[in-house]
Amino acid sequence: MPRYALKIEYDGAPYHGWQRQVELASAQGTIDDALRKLEPDCDGVVGAGRTDAGVHAAGQVAHVDLRRDWDPFRLGEALNAHLRPAPVAILAVAAVADDFHARFSATARHYQFRLFARRAPLTFAAGRMWQVRGPLSLEAMRAGAEHLIGFHDFTTFRSSICQAKSPLKTLDKLEIAQIAHTNGVEFRFNLSARSFLHNQVRSIIGTLERVGSGSWAPEDVATALAASTRTACGPVSPAHGLYLMAVDYPQKPFG
Amino acid sequence: MPRYALKIEYDGAPYHGWQRQVELASAQGTIDDALRKLEPDCDGVVGAGRTDAGVHAAGQVAHVDLRRDWDPFRLGEALNAHLRPAPVAILAVAAVADDFHARFSATARHYQFRLFARRAPLTFAAGRMWQVRGPLSLEAMRAGAEHLIGFHDFTTFRSSICQAKSPLKTLDKLEIAQIAHTNGVEFRFNLSARSFLHNQVRSIIGTLERVGSGSWAPEDVATALAASTRTACGPVSPAHGLYLMAVDYPQKPFG
Repeated sequence: MPRYALKIEYDGAPYHGWQRQVELASAQGTIDDALRKLEPDCDGVVGAGRTDAGVHAAGQVAHVDLRRDWDPFRLGEALNAHLRPAPVAILAVAAVADDFHARFSATARHYQFRLFARRAPLTFAAGRMWQVRGPLSLEAMRAGAEHLIGFHDFTTFRSSICQAKSPLKTLDKLEIAQIAHTNGVEFRFNLSARSFLHNQVRSIIGTLERVGSGSWAPEDVATALAASTRTACGPVSPAHGLYLMAVDYPQKPFG
Repeated sequence: MPRYALKIEYDGAPYHGWQRQVELASAQGTIDDALRKLEPDCDGVVGAGRTDAGVHAAGQVAHVDLRRDWDPFRLGEALNAHLRPAPVAILAVAAVADDFHARFSATARHYQFRLFARRAPLTFAAGRMWQVRGPLSLEAMRAGAEHLIGFHDFTTFRSSICQAKSPLKTLDKLEIAQIAHTNGVEFRFNLSARSFLHNQVRSIIGTLERVGSGSWAPEDVATALAASTRTACGPVSPAHGLYLMAVDYPQKPFG
């Protein structure tokens, strides 16, 4: 059976996460339903990252095996037609080799967390960014972030239900940009790693927000990391500011 | 009675426009309901611009007369609390002189129209930008826009139900920016004038899209303008890409 890779964007708000669950709406389940309109016995998609409830994607990748030899462009068009009006869009489709695996072939994952600092309630950004009502120091957050880049034991920044075998991970990138909008200030955190622990990004952002607000000193991030205990972590930030932006593969399936 | 100016952001999607209407949800009616939680006999707000159904605002201005001498900051906080969960936010409140009038004192209005060019259906930008599925030429749209800047008879770009006494208006600014997003290209049109005719912005954008797609030559915009007839206009663009961004006053009420 020919295998296809899909590049997917979705608004996580209505979904109990990426992963298919009985009786609960999920991004994977929504895509599988659309695929079965095309091939009723389709096994469904396998995704690169199992995003949590409420987490968004601008570049999730999944693979699927189909019976028919589909033209990739037409397959994407047909899926988008069947997905309507769900907030899920197939951005690109590529035919890939049988040994391409969306999860196991991935060499890097890129996440973005969006935080909006302003006093008034959010309208357009509601459910799309984490609102913080006071000002934040970009310099302090950048100084705190420095301590997390590289190879570390990330036990402090890992959910207690994380199933990864080891808490040792390399965080390749943690960059923070400040964007002045008409009615508030956005902080955009860009993180890259081969793989992440469960809740790692949200634990890091919640901790850096404490640094930005002045509750923590930047060096407290190093102390928390060295403590290697979940209790040393700052609050976990909400899911709705998090976006899976891209997944890298040696094969670059989408060109 | 003391008079206050309010700076307001709202998502126009759930509203039949700014203006209060019996039995229909409106931004003005939503704000008036919140005000009457504070002062039950309040006459309500008068807005600078009567945005159409579906049009958004990032900087609508309105004035209101109240009985009590409110601290402006506390008034804004109280209104935002009563507005929840409506997608309307009071961004700023200022005490103003009795002769300040949100509509008649205004010296300029600034609108932005947001257009997203990509093939796949929109998720995050759905209802927030006008989707065009083919590519657009920024240079052609800028060349077309040049013909519209300045003092003209805008009969071609005016709704047939427009109630303005004269079709003669000065368009002070029409600038177009192209922004590369992760999954598509946004075109952001910024227009400024003392005042606009009904549907003027949406008529202009719909016409410039024709130029961007290559259906019209940039010079066709000059021909359409000179024809001074509604039938010479391109299609009117949808409301959901349009934002009232700011209103200028000689007094600069919000500092």
